Amino acid sequence: MTIEKPYLLFLGDAPDQLAAKTATGIADWRPEWCVGQLRLPGCGADTGLKDVDVAEALRLGAKTLVIGVVNSGGFMPDTWTDAICDALAQGLDLASGLHGRLQDFPAINEAAVKHGRNLHDLRHSEQEFTTGKGQKRTGKRLLTVGTDCSCGKKYTALAIEKAMRARGMKADFCATGQTGVLIAERGAAIDAVIADFISGAAEWLSPDNDADHWDLIEGQGSLFHASYAGVSLGLMHGAQPDLLVLCHEPTRTHMRGLPHYPIPDLADCIALNLANARLTNPAVRMLGVSVNTSALSDAAAADYLAEISAKLSLPCLDVMRGGADGLLDHL
Amino acid sequence: MTIEKPYLLFLGDAPDQLAAKTATGIADWRPEWCVGQLRLPGCGADTGLKDVDVAEALRLGAKTLVIGVVNSGGFMPDTWTDAICDALAQGLDLASGLHGRLQDFPAINEAAVKHGRNLHDLRHSEQEFTTGKGQKRTGKRLLTVGTDCSCGKKYTALAIEKAMRARGMKADFCATGQTGVLIAERGAAIDAVIADFISGAAEWLSPDNDADHWDLIEGQGSLFHASYAGVSLGLMHGAQPDLLVLCHEPTRTHMRGLPHYPIPDLADCIALNLANARLTNPAVRMLGVSVNTSALSDAAAADYLAEISAKLSLPCLDVMRGGADGLLDHL
Repeated sequence: MTIEKPYLLFLGDAPDQLAAKTATGIADWRPEWCVGQLRLPGCGADTGLKDVDVAEALRLGAKTLVIGVVNSGGFMPDTWTDAICDALAQGLDLASGLHGRLQDFPAINEAAVKHGRNLHDLRHSEQEFTTGKGQKRTGKRLLTVGTDCSCGKKYTALAIEKAMRARGMKADFCATGQTGVLIAERGAAIDAVIADFISGAAEWLSPDNDADHWDLIEGQGSLFHASYAGVSLGLMHGAQPDLLVLCHEPTRTHMRGLPHYPIPDLADCIALNLANARLTNPAVRMLGVSVNTSALSDAAAADYLAEISAKLSLPCLDVMRGGADGLLDHL
Repeated sequence: MTIEKPYLLFLGDAPDQLAAKTATGIADWRPEWCVGQLRLPGCGADTGLKDVDVAEALRLGAKTLVIGVVNSGGFMPDTWTDAICDALAQGLDLASGLHGRLQDFPAINEAAVKHGRNLHDLRHSEQEFTTGKGQKRTGKRLLTVGTDCSCGKKYTALAIEKAMRARGMKADFCATGQTGVLIAERGAAIDAVIADFISGAAEWLSPDNDADHWDLIEGQGSLFHASYAGVSLGLMHGAQPDLLVLCHEPTRTHMRGLPHYPIPDLADCIALNLANARLTNPAVRMLGVSVNTSALSDAAAADYLAEISAKLSLPCLDVMRGGADGLLDHL
């Protein structure tokens, strides 16, 4: 079932920008699909799109309210229910990437049924997965991995897709999370798959392809994140990447959601990722480091990139400042 | 809902002994709960219990038919349906550790409803899990890890529980798979949890405890198994083990179900397990190697254990030949 566009992005009471990463991802990569954002009191996030209410969004042609907030575990706070039911009543469909199914929230299901609206659960694929087989597949694969969650893995894969296509290369972004699925209009939310089938789902996402075709696979979590490392590793083995790109946010002081866990050293992170990835692709190598320098000045960003590039002997860049060509030059 | 004992163990047409590992696990550790085994033509497995039909099992007091076969992905072959429905009709409840829910198989659900029997899905916990938090917990934890699937992780944890209890130590086996849950009558099938919640489920399984209490956590899969490494890693991070015991089957020629993947070198396997486990417990160490020597003669087993013990500088033993005391001596 296709999710009808354009979208009104729902930010709820997201406490900070990272909590609204589904909304900002769509706004950054598919702004032409969005009429604006809907925020509740206390919201600390901003996509940069204009604030509109449901009535105005409808006048602008909106068809679907997209829940653009993620939280640990992907649950739906009660504080959102009234605003969401109101949007359904006024005429919008609803799309969500939360773990819980929309139809399992009685008020929301009732409003959808009463007003004849569609509910889209992005984390619940109709696809039936099996266990991974670990067989080598044709075509080339690049997986973005991270020092942490929410540090640029999706943006990096999308930027590499853009740069490869600009060079006339065959390249497809492979979405593994709800935001990526909304942007690519295909993929699977790998963290919502039954644990036994993680790598099988990743194999399904990136099947045999032309020898010169690149699948640019959106990584999830981090091998250094105590909550999500299992998902990261299962995805890695299903992806069987030829290349890794390590994504990093240099101002983060601890792992996202885990104040007692420090951000790993970049060299340690590269070593552990390669050590694990060699299981399904002994020829895997680290292409470079993609740094989210949005919190740094131009000068500080340039200094930081030069410093870690010298230390790691790898190309290090910010794909949002000038694109991913600096990585492709080292293919 | 309690699963009523005693059991009739259903082996179906399991092609080999390993495929019937749920049945053999129950027969080996809880023989007093079993009245016999039920096998279909072509079955290549044998628990050592006597073959009985449903009528005889009922005369022996059987209350529940336990599906004792696992297959990759945990699906139910059509060839089993008639025998299972017949058992329900004659008076047995049914318990299964397959991924699919019993009530979703129309013929089985219909027979259960018609005859008033209970269906138990061991892989589907009523428990709602959340993401792992990575917080240090009180008490001590030992996790069994493997060079491969089905190589002795459950038996090793159970043997260590037995040896610790014999010494008067506080120790509990923590089941993470359907067979373990049947043996322990508690636990959770970790491979059936939503991927995002693997480590959270493992944290739930092994909560805070007395400082001198050991949770002996049944490992799953292997960090070297392309299909299941994500589950193994998520379980490891939720377990936060103080000690690892590496389990190994020395006559295996390739990874279970993956003929194109060799069994890893023991030293490499120890190194990668420790490298990953240090994330959530920097003090983790490898206690020893538990070798399933059932395919070797006494002399060959002794030679093999002496050889790898010298090479790895670790205690190496077969817990099914003399118990786990040789590990406890190195605590």
